[in-house]
Amino acid sequence: MEPAERLNGAPAVGSASTDLIAEAGRQWVQNWGDDAMPSMVATTSIMRVQQILMARLNDILGQFELTFPRYEALMLLFLSSRGSLPLGKIGERLQVHRTSVTNLVDGLERAGFAERVPHDHDRRMMLAVITAEGRSAAERATRALNEVRFATEPLTHGDLDAITAILRKLRADADGFPLST
Amino acid sequence: MEPAERLNGAPAVGSASTDLIAEAGRQWVQNWGDDAMPSMVATTSIMRVQQILMARLNDILGQFELTFPRYEALMLLFLSSRGSLPLGKIGERLQVHRTSVTNLVDGLERAGFAERVPHDHDRRMMLAVITAEGRSAAERATRALNEVRFATEPLTHGDLDAITAILRKLRADADGFPLST
Repeated sequence: MEPAERLNGAPAVGSASTDLIAEAGRQWVQNWGDDAMPSMVATTSIMRVQQILMARLNDILGQFELTFPRYEALMLLFLSSRGSLPLGKIGERLQVHRTSVTNLVDGLERAGFAERVPHDHDRRMMLAVITAEGRSAAERATRALNEVRFATEPLTHGDLDAITAILRKLRADADGFPLST
Repeated sequence: MEPAERLNGAPAVGSASTDLIAEAGRQWVQNWGDDAMPSMVATTSIMRVQQILMARLNDILGQFELTFPRYEALMLLFLSSRGSLPLGKIGERLQVHRTSVTNLVDGLERAGFAERVPHDHDRRMMLAVITAEGRSAAERATRALNEVRFATEPLTHGDLDAITAILRKLRADADGFPLST
């Protein structure tokens, strides 16, 4: 996959004053009719917004020695009943490959937020265990993110709920859980 | 930034039958009240859906020697009036750093879809120029993506337009274009 490292959430330089995705939508209709345009525009909007949010969240989380992916892994441990999870479980929950789990846990270990320990009953299985420092960072980072509503400005509560409900249909389809739960 | 390489759009193994984001939402309310929960759930949903879409799109685009980021760069060239753009312009349009533009154009060059040539009037400025093969790939890839509506199944036309309209507010805020255009 391409290293799609986008520029910080900062406004674009240059052609900043146009909605480039809407412009692409107009070109789409001209070239291919209007059948697929709404899906192209929505998909591209999701990609761009993901990059904006990731940049904003990483900016905030930097002060806690976290990135958003590491924050997600840390919160899994923080919210788990034992404060620990097998590495495989973390990959399953975050839907990331084993090598990404290794990187995430390495990052948390370097910051002193988690430790790797062998499982009590099966010493070949490695657990990531949250440390006291990790708990403190999780709490402080969560307070910071909650305060700015996960950098979703200027969206309203209603906007957020609408997005969640619509995207849930796609997640249920891809992740295989029933929509009715 | 963490290499957040997610598993393919395939259904999760293991805890596949639960909506893990909804579950996180419940834990959020228990721990921190319900103020920030809608924003956490929406943000996490956008991140997950971006990964699902990226995996699905890359699966389709693989047959054309493309990834979605490379496809985006190729389409900028395809839709440009001269079939070429300065590298800096590509970075501006895609909101990616110069090193990412280099990688993208390298990928297109290796596939024979674009060439680097110096600008006529300023030989220090490099242009990426789409090749005939690149035009053909752009057309075939676009037909394939249009046919599956950019992998947005099972979302409806109405769902897609709603997402686009809501996310446009956030993009306008971050990218600095007026909402009214």
